Amino acid sequence: MIVAMQDQATEKQIQDVIERMVELGFNVHRTTGTNQTILAGVGKPAHFDVVEFKVLVGVHDAYRISSPYKLAGRSFRPEGTKIKFRNGVVIGDTEVAIMSGPCSVESREQIFESAKQVAASGAKFLRGGAYKPRSSPYSFQGMGVEGLKLMREAADENGLLVVTEVMEIAQIEGMLPYVDLFQLGARNMQNFNLLREIGNTRTPVLMKRGIAATIEEVLLSAEYILAGGNYDVMICERGIRTYETYTRNTMDISAIPVLKKLTHLPIVADPSHGVGIREFVPPMALAAVAAGADALIMEMHPNPDKAMSDGAQSLYPEQLIKLVEQLRKLAPVVGRTVA
Amino acid sequence: MIVAMQDQATEKQIQDVIERMVELGFNVHRTTGTNQTILAGVGKPAHFDVVEFKVLVGVHDAYRISSPYKLAGRSFRPEGTKIKFRNGVVIGDTEVAIMSGPCSVESREQIFESAKQVAASGAKFLRGGAYKPRSSPYSFQGMGVEGLKLMREAADENGLLVVTEVMEIAQIEGMLPYVDLFQLGARNMQNFNLLREIGNTRTPVLMKRGIAATIEEVLLSAEYILAGGNYDVMICERGIRTYETYTRNTMDISAIPVLKKLTHLPIVADPSHGVGIREFVPPMALAAVAAGADALIMEMHPNPDKAMSDGAQSLYPEQLIKLVEQLRKLAPVVGRTVA
Amino acid sequence: MIVAMQDQATEKQIQDVIERMVELGFNVHRTTGTNQTILAGVGKPAHFDVVEFKVLVGVHDAYRISSPYKLAGRSFRPEGTKIKFRNGVVIGDTEVAIMSGPCSVESREQIFESAKQVAASGAKFLRGGAYKPRSSPYSFQGMGVEGLKLMREAADENGLLVVTEVMEIAQIEGMLPYVDLFQLGARNMQNFNLLREIGNTRTPVLMKRGIAATIEEVLLSAEYILAGGNYDVMICERGIRTYETYTRNTMDISAIPVLKKLTHLPIVADPSHGVGIREFVPPMALAAVAAGADALIMEMHPNPDKAMSDGAQSLYPEQLIKLVEQLRKLAPVVGRTVA
Amino acid sequence: MIVAMQDQATEKQIQDVIERMVELGFNVHRTTGTNQTILAGVGKPAHFDVVEFKVLVGVHDAYRISSPYKLAGRSFRPEGTKIKFRNGVVIGDTEVAIMSGPCSVESREQIFESAKQVAASGAKFLRGGAYKPRSSPYSFQGMGVEGLKLMREAADENGLLVVTEVMEIAQIEGMLPYVDLFQLGARNMQNFNLLREIGNTRTPVLMKRGIAATIEEVLLSAEYILAGGNYDVMICERGIRTYETYTRNTMDISAIPVLKKLTHLPIVADPSHGVGIREFVPPMALAAVAAGADALIMEMHPNPDKAMSDGAQSLYPEQLIKLVEQLRKLAPVVGRTVA
Repeated sequence: MIVAMQDQATEKQIQDVIERMVELGFNVHRTTGTNQTILAGVGKPAHFDVVEFKVLVGVHDAYRISSPYKLAGRSFRPEGTKIKFRNGVVIGDTEVAIMSGPCSVESREQIFESAKQVAASGAKFLRGGAYKPRSSPYSFQGMGVEGLKLMREAADENGLLVVTEVMEIAQIEGMLPYVDLFQLGARNMQNFNLLREIGNTRTPVLMKRGIAATIEEVLLSAEYILAGGNYDVMICERGIRTYETYTRNTMDISAIPVLKKLTHLPIVADPSHGVGIREFVPPMALAAVAAGADALIMEMHPNPDKAMSDGAQSLYPEQLIKLVEQLRKLAPVVGRTVA
Repeated sequence: MIVAMQDQATEKQIQDVIERMVELGFNVHRTTGTNQTILAGVGKPAHFDVVEFKVLVGVHDAYRISSPYKLAGRSFRPEGTKIKFRNGVVIGDTEVAIMSGPCSVESREQIFESAKQVAASGAKFLRGGAYKPRSSPYSFQGMGVEGLKLMREAADENGLLVVTEVMEIAQIEGMLPYVDLFQLGARNMQNFNLLREIGNTRTPVLMKRGIAATIEEVLLSAEYILAGGNYDVMICERGIRTYETYTRNTMDISAIPVLKKLTHLPIVADPSHGVGIREFVPPMALAAVAAGADALIMEMHPNPDKAMSDGAQSLYPEQLIKLVEQLRKLAPVVGRTVA
Repeated sequence: MIVAMQDQATEKQIQDVIERMVELGFNVHRTTGTNQTILAGVGKPAHFDVVEFKVLVGVHDAYRISSPYKLAGRSFRPEGTKIKFRNGVVIGDTEVAIMSGPCSVESREQIFESAKQVAASGAKFLRGGAYKPRSSPYSFQGMGVEGLKLMREAADENGLLVVTEVMEIAQIEGMLPYVDLFQLGARNMQNFNLLREIGNTRTPVLMKRGIAATIEEVLLSAEYILAGGNYDVMICERGIRTYETYTRNTMDISAIPVLKKLTHLPIVADPSHGVGIREFVPPMALAAVAAGADALIMEMHPNPDKAMSDGAQSLYPEQLIKLVEQLRKLAPVVGRTVA
Repeated sequence: MIVAMQDQATEKQIQDVIERMVELGFNVHRTTGTNQTILAGVGKPAHFDVVEFKVLVGVHDAYRISSPYKLAGRSFRPEGTKIKFRNGVVIGDTEVAIMSGPCSVESREQIFESAKQVAASGAKFLRGGAYKPRSSPYSFQGMGVEGLKLMREAADENGLLVVTEVMEIAQIEGMLPYVDLFQLGARNMQNFNLLREIGNTRTPVLMKRGIAATIEEVLLSAEYILAGGNYDVMICERGIRTYETYTRNTMDISAIPVLKKLTHLPIVADPSHGVGIREFVPPMALAAVAAGADALIMEMHPNPDKAMSDGAQSLYPEQLIKLVEQLRKLAPVVGRTVA
């Protein structure tokens, strides 16, 4: 940590700051300029809040110079994390994985038809929600465990892996038999107890970026899961909230290369929630892979106009197939492949 | 709902839209202009997603004209909700209630000292966290149930009510004996299962606005609680995330009069999280009451420089006392009182 | 400036950074930790861009520790700036000044009627636009110099000062005879040539915060004017753009006390543009004064429902009168007065 | 326009709204539901402000159903605009054009070296600033007309076209001999007088999106230029301001396909300002073309570490060459070419 004192700071104020730094475990190096004193704290302090120093009397400003996350940082595993699934699929290697399926599991027929089309496109994961967090209490809330069973069956019949959202601690155990990849929703990115429990499982996790989460907060949330010993974490950019309302969210494509630099974890992109409007999903999927995404997760529905949720952003099956063909051509430009 | 068709929409496209509207339960009135056809859907439809209509072929745009919330709307109880506590305190009437205390319960001594000073200021509620959601897994996570007990005892000794955060469903039952007012944190404003369970209790709730929540989303979340039969809900503005980083958040003071118009629920303001810097808490507290807030919740710590969390935004005890005195003078200007 | 090197930075990389710092005029103090080297640059360097250092090879991060503005900083004039007008009105002292009038000058009758009502309320400044920046090329663009003349006459007849917007350099000279206070619009806050020319006049300036301007950018823009020798600058908070669209903008009330701390310049609040909806203007005006504003500027129209621009946010004359009465009672709570 | 009345609106209130609509030139169609009355205004009204209706007594909400821009809308020229330059280069056709060069013209040597490298990469336009808008009055402000001459000479020697920023009306005439494509900066996107004057020239314009401009505002600003008869306008996405500060701005890649849908004007992407950090420029350039951009404008400097401005986001010459090679491979995936 660095503390820059105000020009007019007194020696007493400087000593108070030094004392507090030492108390937290810092070794303090002092630079006395003609106007301003600068205190550099080095070493391995207990966890601290840099804002606490900003408001001490006589302080001009304070800066954290080490990352508040350790396990999630790129330097922890410079070569990058590869997450391996039982059928041989790997995320974080050269192949870009595709995950697709409906927003919600609605019926046996719907999920089986979806799975068939997902498999036909070349995608490797079937997505679908069994428990649905909905902003209105009057909206469809999902089929629950019945939906999970249908999804598992449909996926197995089509050689797919299952990715689905877990919404609370009490659901984890019951979901384990059906799920290959837990999805942690954007609204739960800072549900720290849930993160901690997911960290205690050994099932891979796709953690979505919160709608207003900074990149640092994203990595701190991943840290919660890693700290429990579950290292199979991927981070998903799915759009952030900005002043622009034409699209559902503003998809922060630049977060993809930025995260690739800062962390060793694979990065997934979700263009469906990123823009929220079907016709803009394919260009954003192409952009995400061009920018370095390791996987894509996209909503597709056999009959989007009749979908019980998120129909407006769900691809038609033939759109998915055409898009994956384009992705196959694009991937090699950035040194990747799509199966 | 209104659907405005494109100028060049075909009769077939118009009929498809009408059919879908009827399917959802709307009575459809059609206005055929020289260029453009407009469809007005009236009646009591099943719940629907207006975006679904925006992407139908031939549609120019679609607008929802009824609120998606019912119980939370001002028209449900035009006279406003008054929440009564066992010691006679009422929130939502003319008196502006003050809630204060430390971010976290840290020790017996700290919470008793806090309670004494809170009571001395004239505040009616003791706040303090027993379970702490922290963005880093390495930060202090709260004293748990032991903290709750200490808080209850300290509050009782000083004639105060207890407000504290509930973070998950499993905590609710155990907290009931100690708590007068549940706080629902900003990060849980869209934890819908938790909202639903809180709705099944009969303990009043202070629900904080999510850091990126729109006013409509706030009211939909309140609706979840009200739908369970718990009508004692207050909404708390505590700052939203914007591009401005000088303050921790940007406190949206205008949300106070806007919410007062849209809902019958009392509105609370939290200037501590709103700005995150101690010296700006008093002016923002004054501003919030000037703008119509029914209550204030503010962090105060007997020794903020040594606080285990949020020290930078916690008032010194003497600041709280001076601030409440100012609030007592300001309140009558807007037809209110402070005890 | 502080440069924190990466843990694995080489001596060569460190020397390259030091060399570049020295080149810019810094004296460099080096702190070599067991893991990390920290370089503190002190002295009076040429102007520099801190981002340039962030991207140098081997650098972890770089921080500016001095403000990039000098004349606008509070320490330049700790006692605060008081701006005096010819009729004895002072802004920046204990009295809170009120400025009001229509968005645009529309006709002789309208501006004279406005001036009469503004004066009746106790306000000291007549506002009104003669040149209107409008987002659509098809909207009313203002009466031009004819409007200025009418405004001057109406103000003089009612003992008021004139505040009106200057949109470009070519208008300055022609406006000087009619204007007591130049308004610089939010869209021109970074029109640096215009700022520079206004800095060469000796007419006071009310500079509005840009719709997405950070507090630092606001102060840098004020610096442009001050650097020309025009020290009579006030800064106006008028709402920033956020994800919340219920209100026209989100009025950042906390910017008022923050700016009061950082600069010696008087701070004005514009609740009309801050919220954009008439009924929310009075609570926001009260909030702004409670938070420390030195003046208010608010739109009022004799007949807002027929206004040629901004009618929705213009007060009715009787609302203005009632509001000023409330402000007179509120001001003493924060040590101020309203005439 | 649609006006939805409140459930409890009186007949008098409804009539007042109808009267105001008719006054503005609407034909009004009324739908009377059991609870709510809806008024649809059709026809070609004078320009109006929809917010004016939102605040009328008895109104629930009001919606504009026609675009406020006409000439900029896709339907005005469904086949898309192709902008032709004297050397045969076309923007808006299948070929994606590349524009590159330094932020500022600094010296004869620097701009000639830049032009050579830009031409070597295959780019067709030399960019460079002669007049620089800088947020600090103490930063380098550009070489002025001397810079323009050098740029023209350097471009001609290398077969390039010149794109450079015009900052105010007084500069236009003097710049005409040197410029093939005027750049309108983000800060001037709502400098309406400048837009109008540019609209009176017949030189093509690259208009940058303002840092907080909505897509509708972007198109309204383009409308100003088109209204003057200058149809050779391209719109440039260059990042918007959001809460995320890791990157300089958040590049809104989704604005590219959205704008392609809404307007016939060519869309340019500026990844340099979009992210502000050199290493993230190439992935964002690839993403922009994958998403449908018609051209790219990127900063490159022969020696970015010594650049007088924007060095941190300027590519090294060899990076530009490598990137254009990648773009050549990527373009065909989306049906485009790069020369």
